[in-house]
Amino acid sequence: MKNKLLVIGTMAYDAIETPFDKVDRILGGAATYIALATSKFDIDCGLVSVIGDDFEASDLQLLKDLDVDVTGVEQIKGEKSFFWSGKYHDNMNTRTTVDTQLNVLENFTPNVPESYRNAEVMMIGNLHPGVQLTALKQMNGKPKFVVLDTMNFWMDHFRSTLDEVISKVDLITINDEEARQLSEEHSLVKAAEKIHAMGPKYVIIKKGEHGAILFGEGKTFIAPAFPIDQVIDPTGAGDSFAGGISGVLANTDTINFETLKMGIIYGSVLASFTVEEFGVNALLAVTSDSIKDRIEKFRELTRFEWNEKQNKI
Amino acid sequence: MKNKLLVIGTMAYDAIETPFDKVDRILGGAATYIALATSKFDIDCGLVSVIGDDFEASDLQLLKDLDVDVTGVEQIKGEKSFFWSGKYHDNMNTRTTVDTQLNVLENFTPNVPESYRNAEVMMIGNLHPGVQLTALKQMNGKPKFVVLDTMNFWMDHFRSTLDEVISKVDLITINDEEARQLSEEHSLVKAAEKIHAMGPKYVIIKKGEHGAILFGEGKTFIAPAFPIDQVIDPTGAGDSFAGGISGVLANTDTINFETLKMGIIYGSVLASFTVEEFGVNALLAVTSDSIKDRIEKFRELTRFEWNEKQNKI
Repeated sequence: MKNKLLVIGTMAYDAIETPFDKVDRILGGAATYIALATSKFDIDCGLVSVIGDDFEASDLQLLKDLDVDVTGVEQIKGEKSFFWSGKYHDNMNTRTTVDTQLNVLENFTPNVPESYRNAEVMMIGNLHPGVQLTALKQMNGKPKFVVLDTMNFWMDHFRSTLDEVISKVDLITINDEEARQLSEEHSLVKAAEKIHAMGPKYVIIKKGEHGAILFGEGKTFIAPAFPIDQVIDPTGAGDSFAGGISGVLANTDTINFETLKMGIIYGSVLASFTVEEFGVNALLAVTSDSIKDRIEKFRELTRFEWNEKQNKI
Repeated sequence: MKNKLLVIGTMAYDAIETPFDKVDRILGGAATYIALATSKFDIDCGLVSVIGDDFEASDLQLLKDLDVDVTGVEQIKGEKSFFWSGKYHDNMNTRTTVDTQLNVLENFTPNVPESYRNAEVMMIGNLHPGVQLTALKQMNGKPKFVVLDTMNFWMDHFRSTLDEVISKVDLITINDEEARQLSEEHSLVKAAEKIHAMGPKYVIIKKGEHGAILFGEGKTFIAPAFPIDQVIDPTGAGDSFAGGISGVLANTDTINFETLKMGIIYGSVLASFTVEEFGVNALLAVTSDSIKDRIEKFRELTRFEWNEKQNKI
């Protein structure tokens, strides 16, 4: 029996402009990237999301072909899918949202299919905290491990609901500025301590091209981003990262600090592929061998031997 | 016989304001931090710099007590020492220069003492490229290994002289934005390739709280910054880092990619101590045991084991 992973999040169409190129409408959304990333693992992944009747059958088929269960993806007639348009600036690390059309997301009430209410691992993507809470409450008791993604907008406007969600999860993944906002601490070490006290046993702080930091069990692990010759489109990097983490967690029976470290490594590697092409193209194409090859390189990138005798000072 | 390290750079007084505290006049300057960092190693370090007659005898004595040779530090009568005043903002990663008084630096002509013209390793701190070149030309032929620090200001205004200096060194240490400016490449991987072609076999890109990347011999090594509970004063972090690198390089007979990796680790650890107090205080106080302890922790921070069988996907 494969372990079950339930992913809840957005499915969307994106318009993206970078210094190199521009696309008007390509498949996007957090849950899409997360599910595609987790399809690299030997697990049973179910998706909960909402789409409009403009959503291409071929895009849904793409997920089905990878054995992603889309029973929980509700298609609303007469409405349009969530649409996001963004522009990346020269450094590719900052972007401007040009347009956000919530469309079907506006009245989204998640409905977790019966068959995934006992999922071992639940990945709650970046959504309104009320929606996140509704999905969490539909589960048969608390899943073995719950991962939460969120962002500054929800901290600004729905803090108390967000706090309730945070109190119920095992791992939160946020970026450095969001960690500082959530904790009101500048030092990330102190920020993580405060966030632990809010509920999550593990905190992963995402720093984009600068990598990620894992805090938990009184330990810290720091991983760089895998260095890329040329970033073409950063969209979906964070979601591929979350997908890699969720995939590793669902693919194991024991979840601990070491498992989470491996999650970060897989997540970083999957994200490094994602950014090498527009949209989901590179993530779709990546093979098990190319992932393994990059993990091996990743290890060499950060490894050093410390021998007191050799390196006497 | 100990190996010789020649350090050329500024000695200064700093006024520093942070969100936590403020000091009006404390010992600073790149060469000061570099020399204090290298004093942790079993090498023979000589300093070339310039100071005014306002420079406290006790500050010079502090270096002498640590066996730093200050024969090459010229004291100019009737003039004041280099003075820098800066203010750090909330995030401690950006600062504003409030005041720069070049004073003795304005007409600085370095004079490398005869006894250090055969130094194995030369650390050329951030100075006018013309001054850097003069010092380099005073050496008895090319030293075994030359490290260069520079900054965007010299790239803007003295590019051709800077290019000449860069063509003569083995390692350049610059931050990510400077690497991009120097190479006109956004990708740091591509930037390093271009900079290699300009001369330096090794390139270290400093990213402050996000760590550092070493490129050379077709290999890459990425190290995070050592995470600190509370940064009190970032002044001198980059120079302590450069001091750690120079110290490791001068303390060994074989300089290669592995040595440079250890240089980055020592440099990062020394920088992590420096930022924990104002000015040079923490760097002065650090012991060999506390350095070793932090290096051991550093290794645990970044280490992961990748076993294909355990982590099958």
